Amino acid sequence: MSGPVADLKTISGDVSQTSVQSSFIEAAQNILRQCDTLARLSSLAPPSICRTFLTDQHRAANDLVADWMRCAGMSVREDNAGSVCGRYESSDLQAPILLLGSHLDTVPNAGRYDGTLGVLLAVAAVARLQADGIRLPYHLDVIGFGDEEGVRFGATLLSSRATAGSWDNDWLALRDAAGVSLAEALETFGLARDRVAMASRRAENLLGYLEIHIEQGPVLEDRGIPLGVVTSIAGTRRLLVQVRGSAGHAGTVPMNMRRDALVGAALGIALLETIAREQGVTATVGRISCAPGALNVIPGDVEFSVDIRSGEDALRDQALQSFLDEFGRLCSLRGLELNTRQIHHADATPCTDWMQELLADAATRIGVSPIHLESGAGHDAMALASLCDVGMLFLRCRGGISHHPDESVTVEDVGISLAALLAALELLVDRQTSVLARRRMTRNPT
Amino acid sequence: MSGPVADLKTISGDVSQTSVQSSFIEAAQNILRQCDTLARLSSLAPPSICRTFLTDQHRAANDLVADWMRCAGMSVREDNAGSVCGRYESSDLQAPILLLGSHLDTVPNAGRYDGTLGVLLAVAAVARLQADGIRLPYHLDVIGFGDEEGVRFGATLLSSRATAGSWDNDWLALRDAAGVSLAEALETFGLARDRVAMASRRAENLLGYLEIHIEQGPVLEDRGIPLGVVTSIAGTRRLLVQVRGSAGHAGTVPMNMRRDALVGAALGIALLETIAREQGVTATVGRISCAPGALNVIPGDVEFSVDIRSGEDALRDQALQSFLDEFGRLCSLRGLELNTRQIHHADATPCTDWMQELLADAATRIGVSPIHLESGAGHDAMALASLCDVGMLFLRCRGGISHHPDESVTVEDVGISLAALLAALELLVDRQTSVLARRRMTRNPT
Repeated sequence: MSGPVADLKTISGDVSQTSVQSSFIEAAQNILRQCDTLARLSSLAPPSICRTFLTDQHRAANDLVADWMRCAGMSVREDNAGSVCGRYESSDLQAPILLLGSHLDTVPNAGRYDGTLGVLLAVAAVARLQADGIRLPYHLDVIGFGDEEGVRFGATLLSSRATAGSWDNDWLALRDAAGVSLAEALETFGLARDRVAMASRRAENLLGYLEIHIEQGPVLEDRGIPLGVVTSIAGTRRLLVQVRGSAGHAGTVPMNMRRDALVGAALGIALLETIAREQGVTATVGRISCAPGALNVIPGDVEFSVDIRSGEDALRDQALQSFLDEFGRLCSLRGLELNTRQIHHADATPCTDWMQELLADAATRIGVSPIHLESGAGHDAMALASLCDVGMLFLRCRGGISHHPDESVTVEDVGISLAALLAALELLVDRQTSVLARRRMTRNPT
Repeated sequence: MSGPVADLKTISGDVSQTSVQSSFIEAAQNILRQCDTLARLSSLAPPSICRTFLTDQHRAANDLVADWMRCAGMSVREDNAGSVCGRYESSDLQAPILLLGSHLDTVPNAGRYDGTLGVLLAVAAVARLQADGIRLPYHLDVIGFGDEEGVRFGATLLSSRATAGSWDNDWLALRDAAGVSLAEALETFGLARDRVAMASRRAENLLGYLEIHIEQGPVLEDRGIPLGVVTSIAGTRRLLVQVRGSAGHAGTVPMNMRRDALVGAALGIALLETIAREQGVTATVGRISCAPGALNVIPGDVEFSVDIRSGEDALRDQALQSFLDEFGRLCSLRGLELNTRQIHHADATPCTDWMQELLADAATRIGVSPIHLESGAGHDAMALASLCDVGMLFLRCRGGISHHPDESVTVEDVGISLAALLAALELLVDRQTSVLARRRMTRNPT
């Protein structure tokens, strides 16, 4: 432990003690107020929230978060991919860096905590360090990514992939619903289209990336525990499935002469659920469209989406293959044409062991016994994993509701999360050297 | 038989004879050219066809058909509901009236024969009577209805319901997609909003209403027969079915904790098909929407339409009840809320026995053995049935395709239809007295 770092109790403390609780509750209340303020930076009228990549709302959110970062004692810049980046410097300028962050964009009609809360918890942790006059033996870089959800341009994790060095210039040609290209949107935002890749970080000086996020699922609530350590982020494959039959008059084509694309698709949707349950994966049809779409016309064309996930890639791929085989047979029996197109494929991302230990120990240190769980949702940590070690801490949310204005967390759980984060930062002070040594061995096996 | 009516052979003839065929083929070619011309009176660019009630295209169509009616020897007027009406007078001014007709409006992206062909076949039959110097012992009133499809104002059969005396002044408040009320549209068209009901016909002097229409289904083609006598127009019930579950993140909500509205709806759609096949009715889900509709969100709300039809109302109602009962149980087991709302209900319309006999005899007379079949589609005859006896003759169309620019008929089948119509008009000459006598007995049982 080096530099003016206070002892563990000073920074984090045991949240079971009332005196400690009250100071974290106050900080948590401030974080929730900040979440409320960011929720108003929306392209949809309240209570709907929608803030997508490179929009006016994104600009306003970056500017506001930058202000809060500065107040917390950070130096702030915007990177070439539109992420807002604050640095809380170590007293040692040559020190390694720990990345903390999450995203500031939302889905349409979103909640106010998904992504945003992770950024603001990190800023609040820094504010507390600064208030206590504490410098760490590593730099803390807090990043608010501009695009994780992928709503505007279809491709997800655009900002975190730029940070991780996996930006692809082909994405510049992607267009939003209004026909605006990503290249044009970058320039409108004040960024150079040909310099996005320069947002990438150098792997050598990074300790890792740590992200706090609401669970977005019902498991922690079901188990009555505020915090969960993520073991792995599920790998996802997404497909568009097109079923082609023959349109016809709803009154004049006898039932036995029909090739009804919607009945075929309906059987497919039911089949997918059965296979997912049997084979222990998660599968969802979130979108369906049907043409021509008139009440009195047999549907000739149906398209639906398939999202299939698992913490184990092989399990997921096998379930998907079962579905495609069985559904193919079913369509063929009904004279329906089946076409599928994969639009997304991400393998599972395991969280690094030492990060899982660090987060579990930090939670235990503040009096919480966390569970370990898989993340079914994708996160920026998936992109960062190609750059450095990653870890994620989940906090409980109400009813597992997410991507909806009803998204909700308690002020107590936010306080606990803040305490756990500070505890992790402190525990890392002592573990930093061994982490770097192990990293060097693993990454440079020669 | 009274007045200067020629013998059967002169007017219709046996279409199996080559010399007779050629004259009908020539008339049929003219009818098809007229259909092509009317197809150009469209609010959509070719090849799309769209002609809705009380529009400029309707005005142009009425004017053109009025010209053709006058050429065929009819006196022409437009009624108070925007229908173009031609009369080919009997030599006996006190004679009863036979109504012939169909509609001149179309769905968006329509074919050129649905409705239109029935009007033009009637005009062509009159043209032939006039050319041969033949007057019938009854007046022939040919009507081109302005609204059957109901595209513009949502309610269907507006013009034929006015003719039948079932016009409802409440409809004047209906508005089109641009916000124009039916009352305003009538006045723009040159009609008085408060006089539409005066378009109604008096029942006492009517022999009945006879309509020729393309089948809009594949049955005649499948059986290799050009003509079909309609036994009944199916009664239709339409519902909007709403399934409510709980939205959630596609990755974070375990399969066994979901209330997925789309999987529930899919099972319902498959169930409806099974019940329709088992119970011998026709059922279609033509429209489905799913909210929130994102690839990575479990659908919380789904709405789909149900259209269920049968020539027998009791059969249809029983099948619908089976569906609602079973689907209700299924939703309840899955924790889904089910709501249904009926948006349309029309009972089946049987075609009058003597009309069916007349049309079957007419077809046989010209060398065709017609089949009898139900109409799954709705027609103006449904509205007219509240006023007088109705009969319908279907002609074969290619692939059962309708409500689409690919709608197609052969010139031979149009010629055969014209011959059959003329044969029916002649056969009625001898049956007119008994029809009127029976009608008086049935309608005035005292």
